[in-house]
Amino acid sequence: MLGIERESTMRKGEATRQRIIAEAAPIFNQKGYAGCSMNDLMEATGLEKGGIYRHFANKEELAAEAFRFALAQTIKVRTDHLEDVPGAANKLRRVVQLFVEVPSGVAGGCPLLNTAIDADDGNPELRKLALKGIQDWRTRLAAIVEAGIAAGEIRKKTDPQRIANAIISTLEGALMISRLERTRSALQDARATLEIVIRDISRAE
Amino acid sequence: MLGIERESTMRKGEATRQRIIAEAAPIFNQKGYAGCSMNDLMEATGLEKGGIYRHFANKEELAAEAFRFALAQTIKVRTDHLEDVPGAANKLRRVVQLFVEVPSGVAGGCPLLNTAIDADDGNPELRKLALKGIQDWRTRLAAIVEAGIAAGEIRKKTDPQRIANAIISTLEGALMISRLERTRSALQDARATLEIVIRDISRAE
Repeated sequence: MLGIERESTMRKGEATRQRIIAEAAPIFNQKGYAGCSMNDLMEATGLEKGGIYRHFANKEELAAEAFRFALAQTIKVRTDHLEDVPGAANKLRRVVQLFVEVPSGVAGGCPLLNTAIDADDGNPELRKLALKGIQDWRTRLAAIVEAGIAAGEIRKKTDPQRIANAIISTLEGALMISRLERTRSALQDARATLEIVIRDISRAE
Repeated sequence: MLGIERESTMRKGEATRQRIIAEAAPIFNQKGYAGCSMNDLMEATGLEKGGIYRHFANKEELAAEAFRFALAQTIKVRTDHLEDVPGAANKLRRVVQLFVEVPSGVAGGCPLLNTAIDADDGNPELRKLALKGIQDWRTRLAAIVEAGIAAGEIRKKTDPQRIANAIISTLEGALMISRLERTRSALQDARATLEIVIRDISRAE
């Protein structure tokens, strides 16, 4: 009986931990690491400081988990039904479309962009996670380009990493402008620009 | 005599104020508004709290002045000898080259990007300044494109605002990746991508 009780307590603890992560994620994403105060976290979770830090070693651990959660949500939104889209060029167009049309899934914009800027001169753990997030995203996009080259759909001389970097840079930079201006026009412009790039790499040799 | 003494004190006060702004600028640019502590500012300036806030109403005013200073330095670096470059397409290439090859002039990367991300969900005064910084930059770039259209060098159907947004987005997004990866490869990739765009708008109709 003791074993079962302990297991149930652990499960409840884990559920609370997950809830705190989910509720902290938009706060960290909007305010950044330094800008997210204990009060913000208490307000978002309805817990006291002790109730929150029973589940995490420190603010860094909570911030890292919140980032992982926010990134996972964002990737889910940005790759929705991507595997159903036929052809490399159209897969890239779909990636661009989802980024331009669908919000990131966590309030405050793209967690990758926010955390990258927040941590490039700061928190080394968050910096490492953001770096991995960017590199994984680039690897996924480069794989689409590589498949397109293999299928003869994309020009052989195309550098998959370069195209992947171009897509990420243009979208993230445009999101920065869009969020500042509170209009989607920079994102629409990014889409038009990336269409030039996608046409350029997919035209006949 | 009293008048002259008062003037000399005011001048000295103004010099100290300018020095504090210049020394605070890299701290705000690296750490963000919330991340920049009183201790950071005291360490950077060698002054006590009272010595700093004799010259500014509050942290917001100092942060705003530090941003203005950082942005002015950055614009100076990014428009160096631009007027000597003949032709719109080559002027755009020069803008891209300067951004890719020359650091922003203030430690911590691009103050526009940093402040935009820092303030998009936060400090309204900084947000307004970053917004104006982006809009002014776009206006300057769009004016180059417009001049190119008027000179018959750039295709008539080109949307100057869209090209300006594309250049800013791609460069700022690439800078985010470059600073995270601590290599310049994303910036080099951005340059190659923008060359495709510049060629596209400048080819014969």
